[in-house]
Amino acid sequence: MPGINKIKFINSLKQKKNRKQHSLFIIEGEKMVDELIDSHFDIHSVYALKSWIIERGLAPGKVLRANAQKFALYEIKGPELERISSLATPNKVLALARMPSCTIEGYNPAKSITLMLDKVQDPGNLGTLIRSADWFGVDNIILSEDSAEATNPKVVQSTMGSLLRVRFHYLDLLSFLKSPGMEGIPVIGALTGAPSVYPVSLPEYGVIVLGNESQGISREIEKHVTQRISIPSFSKGSSSPQSLNVAVAGSIILSEIRRKIITG
Amino acid sequence: MPGINKIKFINSLKQKKNRKQHSLFIIEGEKMVDELIDSHFDIHSVYALKSWIIERGLAPGKVLRANAQKFALYEIKGPELERISSLATPNKVLALARMPSCTIEGYNPAKSITLMLDKVQDPGNLGTLIRSADWFGVDNIILSEDSAEATNPKVVQSTMGSLLRVRFHYLDLLSFLKSPGMEGIPVIGALTGAPSVYPVSLPEYGVIVLGNESQGISREIEKHVTQRISIPSFSKGSSSPQSLNVAVAGSIILSEIRRKIITG
Repeated sequence: MPGINKIKFINSLKQKKNRKQHSLFIIEGEKMVDELIDSHFDIHSVYALKSWIIERGLAPGKVLRANAQKFALYEIKGPELERISSLATPNKVLALARMPSCTIEGYNPAKSITLMLDKVQDPGNLGTLIRSADWFGVDNIILSEDSAEATNPKVVQSTMGSLLRVRFHYLDLLSFLKSPGMEGIPVIGALTGAPSVYPVSLPEYGVIVLGNESQGISREIEKHVTQRISIPSFSKGSSSPQSLNVAVAGSIILSEIRRKIITG
Repeated sequence: MPGINKIKFINSLKQKKNRKQHSLFIIEGEKMVDELIDSHFDIHSVYALKSWIIERGLAPGKVLRANAQKFALYEIKGPELERISSLATPNKVLALARMPSCTIEGYNPAKSITLMLDKVQDPGNLGTLIRSADWFGVDNIILSEDSAEATNPKVVQSTMGSLLRVRFHYLDLLSFLKSPGMEGIPVIGALTGAPSVYPVSLPEYGVIVLGNESQGISREIEKHVTQRISIPSFSKGSSSPQSLNVAVAGSIILSEIRRKIITG
């Protein structure tokens, strides 16, 4: 059973600076922890109710994974799980995983779909976008350093496991767009008043830029956009909605790229 | 300035049972309250900082609206606003609006798009769906009585004003689908493993059913679905994502209905 210091340590990881310092983040719930154990992610430790441990034929102590790595498994009681959980209804298990060190070296932006997020701030929106990115086969997500943080517990849980499958990189977006490998790569920007995404041709691969929830894409980034698109509104109200939710808009654009490959 | 009882009363409206009892709900923020005042909604009262009141050339007391109705305007100080606000960063103004009494009498489901939500539970998802419904010109949202509640403060704020433009009805879904006016109306259901939405024809009008976040569409409702569709996955991971977020899936289907009318 983990001591009081361990409980304090886990709770400290709810704050970004502590996650950064220790390079660890929290994943909760049966399904996500099962996926984590099957994944290539390094696992620091797992805290589980007895029932979870027994169901998997495990025992507290060092557990060997299919990938030959090990993690420390602790048995924990319900009230302790409540103290460390970020969920309204704590599940049976919580894990600490090591932050991945994704590299963009060797990735070919001309042969893959890259999602670029310019100050997307809301953790729920980021979680939904990561889930959609996984669904539509996005290879890499490039985030500005002032975007929501992908290992924030709210983001982790809302990705439903997709966090473990999509590679993400916090970078200076301008430097990335100006880097030599990006020459000639299509950069599609979702911008108010731009041509409708429906009838236009879209490249099969390239970068899709989504902007901040209220400000949209920043001016410096917009200069690098090679194709401006928007999702037209069919609103009937006397006043009109100003925009779609950014996660919805991004998902519709990803859907359109995939659809056009299939149906033209 | 509102007294302690009024502050208690406003806070009591954060609970569903009190909203129901008084038939009132809370709307916050400059943009949304401005839209509320311009809307057809009845307003009970508005609580605003001095700056908000002065900017609009108003004075505390009874305020006459463009629609000839009146509401009570109270001046309030920052600390009081913090006590009644549900927002992390309270804005300048909070209003109490009367629940609309939308009727489905006289609406023609054969000439309009209806979104039907079968136990969509998450307030954020409901808010996003209301916003997308407004964007794509959905006339009515029919919700099962056990769906998230549209006047929940989280839902209200995440709709970004669209709540004021889309009509919603909490009904027994089965009775609605079996009602005489529904005969021959297309009922499109988003179901795992169903044919891809991209190449198929979709009706221009009808009912689109979305199910619960984890269980999907319930069996009894599924029996009434006349066209089963799904959004195909292009995931490249070793394990696959099980589903898209329900608000994303619903929005993509609405987008597809509108796109097919334009580009076929």
